[in-house]
Amino acid sequence: MISDDEFITHKDVPGPTKEEIRCLVMCKSRVSPDDIVVDIGCGTGGLTLEFAKRSRLVYAVDKNLDALNTTEKNLKKHNLDKKVHFIHSDALEALKDIETFDILMIGGSGGDLPLLIEEGYQKLTQNGKIVVTSILLETPVEAVETMKKFQMDIDIVDVSISKGRIMKRGTMMLARNPITIVTGKKN
Amino acid sequence: MISDDEFITHKDVPGPTKEEIRCLVMCKSRVSPDDIVVDIGCGTGGLTLEFAKRSRLVYAVDKNLDALNTTEKNLKKHNLDKKVHFIHSDALEALKDIETFDILMIGGSGGDLPLLIEEGYQKLTQNGKIVVTSILLETPVEAVETMKKFQMDIDIVDVSISKGRIMKRGTMMLARNPITIVTGKKN
Amino acid sequence: MISDDEFITHKDVPGPTKEEIRCLVMCKSRVSPDDIVVDIGCGTGGLTLEFAKRSRLVYAVDKNLDALNTTEKNLKKHNLDKKVHFIHSDALEALKDIETFDILMIGGSGGDLPLLIEEGYQKLTQNGKIVVTSILLETPVEAVETMKKFQMDIDIVDVSISKGRIMKRGTMMLARNPITIVTGKKN
Amino acid sequence: MISDDEFITHKDVPGPTKEEIRCLVMCKSRVSPDDIVVDIGCGTGGLTLEFAKRSRLVYAVDKNLDALNTTEKNLKKHNLDKKVHFIHSDALEALKDIETFDILMIGGSGGDLPLLIEEGYQKLTQNGKIVVTSILLETPVEAVETMKKFQMDIDIVDVSISKGRIMKRGTMMLARNPITIVTGKKN
Ligand SMILES: Nc1ncnc2c1ncn2[C@@H]1O[C@H](CSCC[C@H](N)C(=O)O)[C@@H](O)[C@H]1O
Ligand SMILES: Nc1ncnc2c1ncn2[C@@H]1O[C@H](CSCC[C@H](N)C(=O)O)[C@@H](O)[C@H]1O
Ligand SMILES: Nc1ncnc2c1ncn2[C@@H]1O[C@H](CSCC[C@H](N)C(=O)O)[C@@H](O)[C@H]1O
Ligand SMILES: Nc1ncnc2c1ncn2[C@@H]1O[C@H](CSCC[C@H](N)C(=O)O)[C@@H](O)[C@H]1O
Repeated sequence: MISDDEFITHKDVPGPTKEEIRCLVMCKSRVSPDDIVVDIGCGTGGLTLEFAKRSRLVYAVDKNLDALNTTEKNLKKHNLDKKVHFIHSDALEALKDIETFDILMIGGSGGDLPLLIEEGYQKLTQNGKIVVTSILLETPVEAVETMKKFQMDIDIVDVSISKGRIMKRGTMMLARNPITIVTGKKN
Repeated sequence: MISDDEFITHKDVPGPTKEEIRCLVMCKSRVSPDDIVVDIGCGTGGLTLEFAKRSRLVYAVDKNLDALNTTEKNLKKHNLDKKVHFIHSDALEALKDIETFDILMIGGSGGDLPLLIEEGYQKLTQNGKIVVTSILLETPVEAVETMKKFQMDIDIVDVSISKGRIMKRGTMMLARNPITIVTGKKN
Repeated sequence: MISDDEFITHKDVPGPTKEEIRCLVMCKSRVSPDDIVVDIGCGTGGLTLEFAKRSRLVYAVDKNLDALNTTEKNLKKHNLDKKVHFIHSDALEALKDIETFDILMIGGSGGDLPLLIEEGYQKLTQNGKIVVTSILLETPVEAVETMKKFQMDIDIVDVSISKGRIMKRGTMMLARNPITIVTGKKN
Repeated sequence: MISDDEFITHKDVPGPTKEEIRCLVMCKSRVSPDDIVVDIGCGTGGLTLEFAKRSRLVYAVDKNLDALNTTEKNLKKHNLDKKVHFIHSDALEALKDIETFDILMIGGSGGDLPLLIEEGYQKLTQNGKIVVTSILLETPVEAVETMKKFQMDIDIVDVSISKGRIMKRGTMMLARNPITIVTGKKN
């Protein structure tokens, strides 16, 4: 895992997704060396980098050009840029240009989640995964509802992490916002 | 309950303890109208106010004068100041001047926790309670260890609260730091 | 607060809602001595009892007769039965027979949540509250969506509680299922 | 990751550690292909298997013979047994017979934690890690205290996971007991 503080960030780009959540996303996606991954909403590149280290090819998609540039800088810092193909467009548009993939990571969807899952499901390989992370109450409900329509195997995990900070008077526990990870597998 | 945003605050004084935790402290303390309460580390007055509304008399103790002044302002805003006796001193010192009480609230202890519990236990009435809140890993361990020595009935609750914030794109869940509430009852 | 283990229970009736959640519901509802409360889904009576202690009158509603009988037994144990009016019917039906109330507590809704909130809103007094508790992902989303339509002030709290159990080798933290409490206030 | 339900279990052996925690332990340990790992308290083999897949050699230690047998069965099921060396003894004893290692995993310590960390630190390679998982309040405090003495870089994470269960009436969130993961790095 790459530590959070190793990432180059940009004031207008959210992320990186924190280490513990990146770690859980890698596990839930069951990513393997010959997988093709599509990372919708690459942001600072937190997930794009971890996927690039573990798969064959990653399509990094974001509607915000600053996000793509930031992600590229972080990839180059770890010379992983050769494994990533950048698409500067809206998620739904981007999906139209990609033929097939093993893992669809949806880290940002801006309201198009059901459509993204439907479009993504068609192009997913057998046993392929759609992984949706969210800090909104509504997103996991939408994800589960849509994945049910396609009889996907659905795994839902709500993750609340607190990090200890060692101070003179003791170890203070600082909470992170809870993240829900919904993973759908295509049968 | 008094909402968090109704409190007058001071830049050098922590608090108020958030509504949900103040609420749980009231329940765990089983405070009743004829109780005498000692609030060690009154800070902004969050707990002092709620105890003042529900008990006979509250001793508000803090080593920081700004804390006592802030607590007094908040009490006056809700005309509860008549029910509170202020002690500007270190907790251990303060306890020496108070004869007996039904509830000892320890919201800040600066390392004297075991001594405070020992001193407090002697002056506690039958079925009286010691309530310790903490964001440090070490505090609940110290509290449980010391309360065990006096064969107190011990209740331990770790509370993780996330508050929803309604935004255009959905309801964002924002985590609060986890708080542990240890309550010891004198048999 | 009445401790969880003081409740008479019934194998076919869920509840009582645990002490810490009952405590938070009382706080969020801002229940006061002259309030009329409707408890939809009274179950074992956990919330009905706490409301009965703090309000003028409680309508305890449940479609399961065993729930009403169990709730009545618990009320009598604490001689609070005089303050409660039982309605053995489906929630929507029950609401039709009640003219007005200050607090509508929805502890079980079986899919009728939006309708219950709409019907309840009409009969709610000024500054009255609708409190919805849930362990399902979907319920808080439905509650927030419906309350938004009536421009209610909405408070959303996700509560994760772990209880300490003192064992020989140390204090084991046992998690409770997370509960979301959504409170809507009528302006 | 190997799913929880793929493990062969034994009524007298705790574990396997759940998937999400095994995943986080792998990340926190930064395990790499040429590492030697010591798994104290291998139990059902949950962590032993994941380490075996990612390192050169794992010493699986447990004082309970049933634990070693169960772990061996699970390793054989995934033909990973060649990568594991079994030691049926108390942790402290076992450590004396092992010369050096890159990762010391302490999943069970039965009160010897400080000694285990001290003994382990001496035999740890440069940048080696000690990972301690616990469900007890006291363990992380002891771990942090002891690791501080050796000026280790300390990472403390409290992890609360809830798993969604899809039911007819909605998605029920079921909490797991909170686990604290303390990772010390030798500088
Ligand atoms: N419909 C859409 N199409 C393309 N990008 C989108 C989108 N909706 C949101 N995004 C992008 O999604 C990103 C979410 S932040 C993601 C952070 C990333 N996982 C990391 O580890 O750094 C933002 O950069 C936002 O621009
Ligand atoms: N040994 C000690 N004696 C007296 N006050 C102490 C103390 N250790 C810490 N404190 C005080 O404890 C307070 C903790 S903050 C408490 C916040 C308070 N519960 C509220 O709701 O506003 C601080 O004001 C600090 O000055
Ligand atoms: N539509 C509906 N009408 C009436 N009761 C309902 C209902 N949907 C669910 N319920 C009831 O809601 C209850 C939920 S359990 C509530 C437990 C209660 N708060 C306590 O502290 O004991 C169940 O008894 C169930 O029978
Ligand atoms: N001092 C000690 N020496 C050796 N084994 C110990 C020990 N204290 C506890 N244990 C062992 O530690 C184990 C904890 S359970 C560990 C579960 C394991 N991580 C899994 O994934 O399956 C138990 O099997 C217990 O027998």
